[in-house]
Amino acid sequence: MTVEVEALKSLLGGADQVKTGPSAIDEHGRDMTYHPLAEPEAVVFPQSTEDVAEVVKWAVGTATPIVPYGVGSSLEGHILPVEGGISVDFAEMNQVIDIRPDDFMVKVQPGVTRHQLNQSLKRYGLFFPVDPGADASLGGMAATNASGTNTVCYGGMRQNTLALKVVMADGRVIDVGSEALKTSAGYDLKDLIIGSEGTLGVITELTLKLTGIPEVTKAGKAVFSSVRDAGAAAENILKAGLPVSRMELVDEYTVAAVNEHSQTDYPEAPSLFLEFAGGEQAVNEQIDFAQDIMQSENLVSMQFEADEQARNELWRARHEAALAVVGLTPGKMLTSTDVAVPISELTEAIVTTRQLLDQHHYTQAALFGHVGDGNFHVVIGVDRDNLDEVAAYKEVNHQIVDYALSKGGTSTGEHGVGIGKREYLLKEHGQGVDVMKTIKQALDPKHLLNPGKIFLD
Amino acid sequence: MTVEVEALKSLLGGADQVKTGPSAIDEHGRDMTYHPLAEPEAVVFPQSTEDVAEVVKWAVGTATPIVPYGVGSSLEGHILPVEGGISVDFAEMNQVIDIRPDDFMVKVQPGVTRHQLNQSLKRYGLFFPVDPGADASLGGMAATNASGTNTVCYGGMRQNTLALKVVMADGRVIDVGSEALKTSAGYDLKDLIIGSEGTLGVITELTLKLTGIPEVTKAGKAVFSSVRDAGAAAENILKAGLPVSRMELVDEYTVAAVNEHSQTDYPEAPSLFLEFAGGEQAVNEQIDFAQDIMQSENLVSMQFEADEQARNELWRARHEAALAVVGLTPGKMLTSTDVAVPISELTEAIVTTRQLLDQHHYTQAALFGHVGDGNFHVVIGVDRDNLDEVAAYKEVNHQIVDYALSKGGTSTGEHGVGIGKREYLLKEHGQGVDVMKTIKQALDPKHLLNPGKIFLD
Repeated sequence: MTVEVEALKSLLGGADQVKTGPSAIDEHGRDMTYHPLAEPEAVVFPQSTEDVAEVVKWAVGTATPIVPYGVGSSLEGHILPVEGGISVDFAEMNQVIDIRPDDFMVKVQPGVTRHQLNQSLKRYGLFFPVDPGADASLGGMAATNASGTNTVCYGGMRQNTLALKVVMADGRVIDVGSEALKTSAGYDLKDLIIGSEGTLGVITELTLKLTGIPEVTKAGKAVFSSVRDAGAAAENILKAGLPVSRMELVDEYTVAAVNEHSQTDYPEAPSLFLEFAGGEQAVNEQIDFAQDIMQSENLVSMQFEADEQARNELWRARHEAALAVVGLTPGKMLTSTDVAVPISELTEAIVTTRQLLDQHHYTQAALFGHVGDGNFHVVIGVDRDNLDEVAAYKEVNHQIVDYALSKGGTSTGEHGVGIGKREYLLKEHGQGVDVMKTIKQALDPKHLLNPGKIFLD
Repeated sequence: MTVEVEALKSLLGGADQVKTGPSAIDEHGRDMTYHPLAEPEAVVFPQSTEDVAEVVKWAVGTATPIVPYGVGSSLEGHILPVEGGISVDFAEMNQVIDIRPDDFMVKVQPGVTRHQLNQSLKRYGLFFPVDPGADASLGGMAATNASGTNTVCYGGMRQNTLALKVVMADGRVIDVGSEALKTSAGYDLKDLIIGSEGTLGVITELTLKLTGIPEVTKAGKAVFSSVRDAGAAAENILKAGLPVSRMELVDEYTVAAVNEHSQTDYPEAPSLFLEFAGGEQAVNEQIDFAQDIMQSENLVSMQFEADEQARNELWRARHEAALAVVGLTPGKMLTSTDVAVPISELTEAIVTTRQLLDQHHYTQAALFGHVGDGNFHVVIGVDRDNLDEVAAYKEVNHQIVDYALSKGGTSTGEHGVGIGKREYLLKEHGQGVDVMKTIKQALDPKHLLNPGKIFLD
């Protein structure tokens, strides 16, 4: 089918709101990952919820697939128009609409990015705590139910989103959730839309919950001689009820890759990156307690920093882990798997995963985890044009996911299903998948909202 | 229609699993609230998920409504079989199935109550933090998305439930959610089932997230000379990012009712009840900071206690608020409305609500709130057989809800819609209600799962 571009243009005010030139098409047909290219036929830049509703109605009338697009930082091919159609890019819906500091609340358009939002909040002593690493768009973060390094303390997108405005497949605009901090009024459509990856509706506005910037933040790095020691220390810190605001484990091979890539000389040993935040005395007390716990687990060395720059320097090996591995293999694309397992299974899962990587001869693979959530990543650079390389990656990914599922875990802790994890959904949810499909069928009977994502068929 | 009791009995192993005697019918046809009586035709006591699946299949085959029943502590008539049919009582599914302290996780049957669960967790230094006041069943708490006094710190049922086993309307048993602490794998069926009040599926097992019992807990009571001062103090404590584990406001009329009912002599003034938990130094630092903030808001007096018994005594006026008001009017039944508004609207909402109560001559009405969530209750004793009294209550409730909705709030922060809040759903969610109904229609096309709840038609 061919998109009737002129009809689409006439729907929207500005002629520039619909692009079909090669650069726009190319840009919206690729991402930073190994997933195969898939181009849209046109790219639409809505400026309002009304624009989106018009576009959705037009698309449904013409049986045109619609793929929402934020900044393209998703990792499982969510933004790739695998069945053609149009890409709906939220670049022009990037306004922070209303900051309500007294309500710990902000309303934003979906194209606002995380850094942009936090920059606008700083003067109020507030921040939005979901931190997936990338400077993702908030619409995209909601669509994939993103989380990240400080989810152990603050939760992910579901816990930090109060309400959404959503254009449904029939063009109706609905408001889901509430400006109240909690509600039991009817079905939880907000959390159904969050994580539905653009397949049930298109998010056009988000009301987010904000958190006060803590008085003091101290970041630490603890070095251990084995991943097991580091894992045991992390588990015991959690068990003691210590309120860590971040807790990340990076294995020795990953530190070695960072050293090679960035010409640093961090000790090439399993490292636990920690952060505590709150009142000065509380933070110091927590650090002392954490240190006691870690010493019982053969802590080799530990360092804490309060100053923001020193904290960032201390955490550099964590921040650069993914980029280092991809950077060491020029021309390769990112793969980042993200299984999560129950806490007590995490250490064993990390050890087993590294063994799998060794068996598959992945000498340069980063492995690091959000230990507090039982969630970890494996990052490998893959040449997306080399089918053998892609197949080999898929095989090891398959084994990592299978292991996690066998331990009661999930195939994706925070990146979403997209096209990369579809084959595991049935294994993970069994007949629950039929229920998901029943809902999809009821709300998008023509299957035009981001088709080809989440479900295999 | 008449329930074919013999057919039902033959489905289940024990003859005692189906009761039709007057006491069982009566017990399951009433609750502690003002809602009109509505009796089931039979009461079924399943002993397993398989039992529930059999009962659901039978009920769908015979077009019999199914109403799940926990301990009957719900406040909006959820457990009343308003369209007849059978009550499914989980009294015999009350086992704590598996405690996994290393995973901060427990699996329970839906008939387990909150106190029973916390009793079984104590030896592991863990607790389940959702505290709605009543010793409710966990199945019922999930069905209504319950929360309570410490939700400001720990969240409600959605945040503290990892996974559910659910019997759907066609008898299929599905597992939703994950044992991992977070997941982005497919649609969030777990949070759709939570708060769906038995209308989308019947919960037969819950996997809950546990929290470590804090080292130190200190509870305080701060007395102010006006509700505005107390409200402003609460808002500023939140803004300062102080991690309160509970924060409750009780107004002066409520304290007077407690004094009259319990022969106590608490100062009859607006009181803020606080709790801080964590390490000793952290808690002391937080209390000092909170005291500074409250003094800027004309604090009259303040008292903190660490010992459990002393804490309970200090909080007595809060704990007894609802019972005191109902106790002062023998024979009357409980009404407890539970609107929630954005934080900055709370103080004004409480003042306005008390004015509404005065206008309607409710001299004995308790008003107390979960200030940290913007959620508050009005409790009035009503004679359920006196239609004028019921109508008068409904009118003031209507005005309280309308006010909350006009400020961006919700008609129910934690009790659920049931039959008592149905008329507000459309006003609160607009076309979102159609989307909810589409999902209901797709998943329970014969409308046999707890019919007559949530939706007006």
